[in-house]
Amino acid sequence: MRQLTASHLPLGFRFAAGRAGIRKHGGDDLALMVSERPAAAAGVFTKNCVRAAPVELSAKALRESGGKARAVVANAGNANCATPNQAAVAEATAAAAAALAGVPRHQVLVASTGVIGEPFAEDVIPDALPGLWRSLDRGQFEACAKAIMTTDTVPKARCASFEVGGRTARVAGMAKGAGMIMPDMATMLSFLFTDADVSPGHLRKALRLAVGRSFNCITVDSDTSTNDTVLLLANGASGVTVGESAESVIAFAEALGGLTKALAIDIVRDGEGASKLARIAVQGAESEGAARRIAMAIANSPLVKTAIAGADPNWGRILAAAGKSGQPFRPDDADISINGAQVCSGGMRADFVEASVQRAMEGDSVEIEFRLRGEGRGRATVWTCDLTEGYVRINADYRT
Amino acid sequence: MRQLTASHLPLGFRFAAGRAGIRKHGGDDLALMVSERPAAAAGVFTKNCVRAAPVELSAKALRESGGKARAVVANAGNANCATPNQAAVAEATAAAAAALAGVPRHQVLVASTGVIGEPFAEDVIPDALPGLWRSLDRGQFEACAKAIMTTDTVPKARCASFEVGGRTARVAGMAKGAGMIMPDMATMLSFLFTDADVSPGHLRKALRLAVGRSFNCITVDSDTSTNDTVLLLANGASGVTVGESAESVIAFAEALGGLTKALAIDIVRDGEGASKLARIAVQGAESEGAARRIAMAIANSPLVKTAIAGADPNWGRILAAAGKSGQPFRPDDADISINGAQVCSGGMRADFVEASVQRAMEGDSVEIEFRLRGEGRGRATVWTCDLTEGYVRINADYRT
Repeated sequence: MRQLTASHLPLGFRFAAGRAGIRKHGGDDLALMVSERPAAAAGVFTKNCVRAAPVELSAKALRESGGKARAVVANAGNANCATPNQAAVAEATAAAAAALAGVPRHQVLVASTGVIGEPFAEDVIPDALPGLWRSLDRGQFEACAKAIMTTDTVPKARCASFEVGGRTARVAGMAKGAGMIMPDMATMLSFLFTDADVSPGHLRKALRLAVGRSFNCITVDSDTSTNDTVLLLANGASGVTVGESAESVIAFAEALGGLTKALAIDIVRDGEGASKLARIAVQGAESEGAARRIAMAIANSPLVKTAIAGADPNWGRILAAAGKSGQPFRPDDADISINGAQVCSGGMRADFVEASVQRAMEGDSVEIEFRLRGEGRGRATVWTCDLTEGYVRINADYRT
Repeated sequence: MRQLTASHLPLGFRFAAGRAGIRKHGGDDLALMVSERPAAAAGVFTKNCVRAAPVELSAKALRESGGKARAVVANAGNANCATPNQAAVAEATAAAAAALAGVPRHQVLVASTGVIGEPFAEDVIPDALPGLWRSLDRGQFEACAKAIMTTDTVPKARCASFEVGGRTARVAGMAKGAGMIMPDMATMLSFLFTDADVSPGHLRKALRLAVGRSFNCITVDSDTSTNDTVLLLANGASGVTVGESAESVIAFAEALGGLTKALAIDIVRDGEGASKLARIAVQGAESEGAARRIAMAIANSPLVKTAIAGADPNWGRILAAAGKSGQPFRPDDADISINGAQVCSGGMRADFVEASVQRAMEGDSVEIEFRLRGEGRGRATVWTCDLTEGYVRINADYRT
């Protein structure tokens, strides 16, 4: 997975970032992303039953357009959620962008992130959009990734490419995350663009598959948000078509899968207050779902997450977290390794040197493997981060 | 609910605390609690599928004895869990206490709390028990409450009394909690004693009912432990019989219910790093179970808990936490109050003065009410505490 370079950006898209004054503190808070030509589009949205207006609007737009979109408008600083005029704000935004692009309203998708329930004037984004429209440029991708940040400390942008029949297509993506990250989806936005030609139906399937193995396998704090949105646009500008050959389907799935996984890990690594990335791999469970429940119980345990922060190979907390997952297993069957060193064998302390595992945990990545002995073939991998005093500081002070 | 006073302790029980050297740092780490006469006994244990040896032993002893017990031995400093000799340690403990008391082994119940997976020599507790046996005394109740502490900052001991036909019976209880507190049960021990005469069958029912409305309604960090144990002994020394009259059943249930609720709230108030107690009351849900799921989702949300720490009336986080509970509701139906001030009306910001709600939240108790408009009659109340930098500090450093 490559870091972003301008020469690898997908063809036929242009980007602009600017300041509309939505965010209290300075800096860009608005991003406009436009395809120069008609594009297929797909989206995956939060499962929280409280859904912000931009989520409702974008989901509806995709249904009405039959999976076509021309522009995406995203803002940070206000979630546009749980206010009386939230629908009006989202609609005014889409209408303004549609007028600039000369396309029907349902070909504009919108997304917001920030505080919930704060007043949001309807003309703020429409007033700022013409300025952004004039500055649209292929090279402003990373500026957009920066404009959608909230408590993120670094912008997250990645790109990949794939070949079909000797021709190259590109995929690029940006994401913002930080807190409230937990499947299914979170205060997480991700916008993905490819210059391959993909039908709306196939695009939807490919996106769901990729999200299931990336953004839905991460957790920062087990909270999920009202605004989570992943959007994928495909405009065909590369001349590469995906869907006609198995080769093209696989190549696209691999590129998209690698891209979304890299962005998902970028989000966790930049989790609020996080100092370490932790990978939790479970195998030997009776099914993939069972493995996932165990992995998520470990990944979401505050006691495991604080032990990771303290570089403490406290495998008893890992075993206890797995035990409360709701997925029954025989403790005698449990083996646990931390960064390759076996710390628990058959549910009991393995013979390991505490100081050396501790030293290994002082790095910025911790790998926890939880294996059940026996016939089970279910496996799952999830990513999380440690729980530090920084997380508490950020979230106790967020608005004040 | 009264604070503990010696004159209110149940008759016919004696207590002793001492140091067996199990805990690294100084102080008592062993408690012995004995009924002078045969007593009925009941227990409620962790639902974690990884159960420590003392839990297994006590559950089995209650089955074998038909709900009779004469002594309880509890230690702090080592959970006696996930080690090769855990069963031998628990058995040696019960055997030593049974020999001192002159009763069958299955009339001794044992409990442990502390680190999981640490070596624990089989003779440590048996060697220390004779000294404790000699110092048994009615007045050492609070010393036992202190000996079972781990990261608790204060001992938790409460007593109550009730009258049946003009005669008084007493109930007293101790608890230890702090971290890993979440239903159903947690690294939580509680030992309850009454001098009423109660049949084992009725005692079991009364205990289950009381635990369901107290210890199972609290959460510190959503983690549950391998060792959670609540034991209740009834020895009849007061001459009061519970079970023959409805009056006696109700009086006992009320006294026991009040006692366990007070202890449960004591545990949350002393949650690891906690600076505030928070009460989450949900009403208008479609069932009690639905109300409980919503209340627990709010109580366990790290974003809500950090907002409470920061005295931030961030009702959007409360709404979003309720929304991810898995219990569907219409956001338009949600009203939220914090310390009596309505902050959310019909899913939107209510007209409230931020600074005054903030000031009210700066006290040491926060009351959150979440009401759904409509016909639903389901209600539930749970207690939690705020999530502070102190929680992280305590748990990142626990063993090192």
